[in-house]
Amino acid sequence: MSRFLSSRLQSLQAYTPGEQPRDRKYIKLNTNESPYPPSPRVLDAVSREAVSALNLYPDPTCKMLREKLAARYGVGEDMVFVSNGSDDILNFCFMAFCNKEKGMAYADITYGFYSVFAQLHCVPSCVIALKDDFTVDVKAFESCGMNVVIANPNAPTGIMLPLEDIKRIAFANRDSVVMVDEAYVDFGGESALSLLPECDNIIVVRTFSKSRSMAGARLGFAIASPELIADLELIKYSTNPYDINRLTQIAGAAAIDSDEYYFDNAKKIIETREYTAQRLTAAGFKVIPSKANFIFATYPGVCGEKLYSILKEKGILVRHFGSERIKEYIRITIGTKEEMDVLCGTLEDIVSGKGN
Amino acid sequence: MSRFLSSRLQSLQAYTPGEQPRDRKYIKLNTNESPYPPSPRVLDAVSREAVSALNLYPDPTCKMLREKLAARYGVGEDMVFVSNGSDDILNFCFMAFCNKEKGMAYADITYGFYSVFAQLHCVPSCVIALKDDFTVDVKAFESCGMNVVIANPNAPTGIMLPLEDIKRIAFANRDSVVMVDEAYVDFGGESALSLLPECDNIIVVRTFSKSRSMAGARLGFAIASPELIADLELIKYSTNPYDINRLTQIAGAAAIDSDEYYFDNAKKIIETREYTAQRLTAAGFKVIPSKANFIFATYPGVCGEKLYSILKEKGILVRHFGSERIKEYIRITIGTKEEMDVLCGTLEDIVSGKGN
Repeated sequence: MSRFLSSRLQSLQAYTPGEQPRDRKYIKLNTNESPYPPSPRVLDAVSREAVSALNLYPDPTCKMLREKLAARYGVGEDMVFVSNGSDDILNFCFMAFCNKEKGMAYADITYGFYSVFAQLHCVPSCVIALKDDFTVDVKAFESCGMNVVIANPNAPTGIMLPLEDIKRIAFANRDSVVMVDEAYVDFGGESALSLLPECDNIIVVRTFSKSRSMAGARLGFAIASPELIADLELIKYSTNPYDINRLTQIAGAAAIDSDEYYFDNAKKIIETREYTAQRLTAAGFKVIPSKANFIFATYPGVCGEKLYSILKEKGILVRHFGSERIKEYIRITIGTKEEMDVLCGTLEDIVSGKGN
Repeated sequence: MSRFLSSRLQSLQAYTPGEQPRDRKYIKLNTNESPYPPSPRVLDAVSREAVSALNLYPDPTCKMLREKLAARYGVGEDMVFVSNGSDDILNFCFMAFCNKEKGMAYADITYGFYSVFAQLHCVPSCVIALKDDFTVDVKAFESCGMNVVIANPNAPTGIMLPLEDIKRIAFANRDSVVMVDEAYVDFGGESALSLLPECDNIIVVRTFSKSRSMAGARLGFAIASPELIADLELIKYSTNPYDINRLTQIAGAAAIDSDEYYFDNAKKIIETREYTAQRLTAAGFKVIPSKANFIFATYPGVCGEKLYSILKEKGILVRHFGSERIKEYIRITIGTKEEMDVLCGTLEDIVSGKGN
């Protein structure tokens, strides 16, 4: 930290991304990436010709991408916003809709970035504890009187909140914005897109990083009323109008044209998730029912950090969070069937004492 | 604008990027892009294999890029920050170092984004008028007592501020940060990098968009003391840690290895700039001496907007700014020799009455 840093930021705790160690080759199940590459169309689209044109700025309006997304999701083009990953959109929402008087409500156990944004922008947080079974306390959100952000399915639990509950929260907070972060919705969730006609205060936030195998390209999008989208555009054009590079725009457009490929992959991931959950449950783990591309699991009497450490030693990366209510758990990304067989075998050995 | 937008943002005027009309093919001299493609190494580096790995997140530390930049510029790796274009870095500087008490000083005629950042973050601006000849009023900056941002060479004038003046400003504002925005430095400017050992308050901001032909890839970097760089990292990890996608990291690394190619291109652009300036001067234009990849020119008695409009009709895009002191001028990016011949011929026709 320099002596020039603004005093309001001096206690800011930044987000910690999942580790990417390079000391050896790992089975990487710690950042909820897809185990499958982008679609063949994407591979073809990022051509040498496309790279040759990198001397020119990208289209700041991302017209091609927004048109395709609008057609794909059956909304107007003015209801679509695209950005450099969905984190960017969430950050813009904090900037656009929060201030000293009006903060953001979110669950105590959810995506760790929400609290970072609140700290960064010095806006009040209302942290609402999940119930004992890790489901959302809908009543508490209904009466919060703040903007709301809900990951649905939630991370790191994988639990889905039914749409009627999202609707209840949006109706109860008519003068606030309700962001529904649907990063994982394509693995069995239900999208709040269907609520947009009745709820002008909902912003659905999506990403190409998970089901569309493009975490490395950085592309997120939001769908909401044209007025809310205009607010996000205002922030984008006041920070970084050219935020999505040319190759990502091209790759994203090709990905939207590859639905079948990605549906198939999502289906495989769901099947592998259910297989993994069953096998770990049979081995004595408690596995939270997940609608995402990861599972959240714990083994009675063995702390999560220990499981994480032994797995890492054995060449498998999973994610462990140290906060009090979830420190017994590990979050395991669903990889290929082969990777999950190795994971399950290793965990079975650990808890039976063979791998310890 | 929605009814949810925070009141502090309701009068925010966003930045206006250069137009990208699609109604016909233009000679595009309006956004200071390089007319030359990225180096052959860059074309090779963005391979099908690299695209195949887009399912994985990029390295948030951008280690390879930072190592190469550190070696290239002879500084420690902890003195290098990379981001999604240099606008992102400038935005981060406003976030990190400004607050209600401490604002930012910048010239009245300079890169238009500085005032947008100040508005967005609700920090005070000290707008210091350039002298009549468009050079910087160094004394006024010396006594401003604020953070400072200076584009050097300046945009849209192309005028370079001598390093001793930058040093004077940095010394006079020891408790403030002085950002030197060197987007155009490779076209004949002098870098403030040499001042870093004596000035712990200088941040040099650079981009791959101009001399390195990568405007479409979005890559900027900053070089400063490790403490200042740590502040920028704090902001990055609190907004969007994965902000540079995998392909841009790969392309950027290959670009750093292609110095000779880019030096040659910069040399050609400088030669073409001098040729264009001489030819327009001979035709009666006043051309400000430029150290950038553009020139700022005016013709007595013909307003800049008219020149801009006639050129656009004739298929040539240049940039016109409407603000009072510079509305007589147009900013012309230096393209290839062939493009500048068309531009010069067209302007000669216009002012001789043939093209009007």
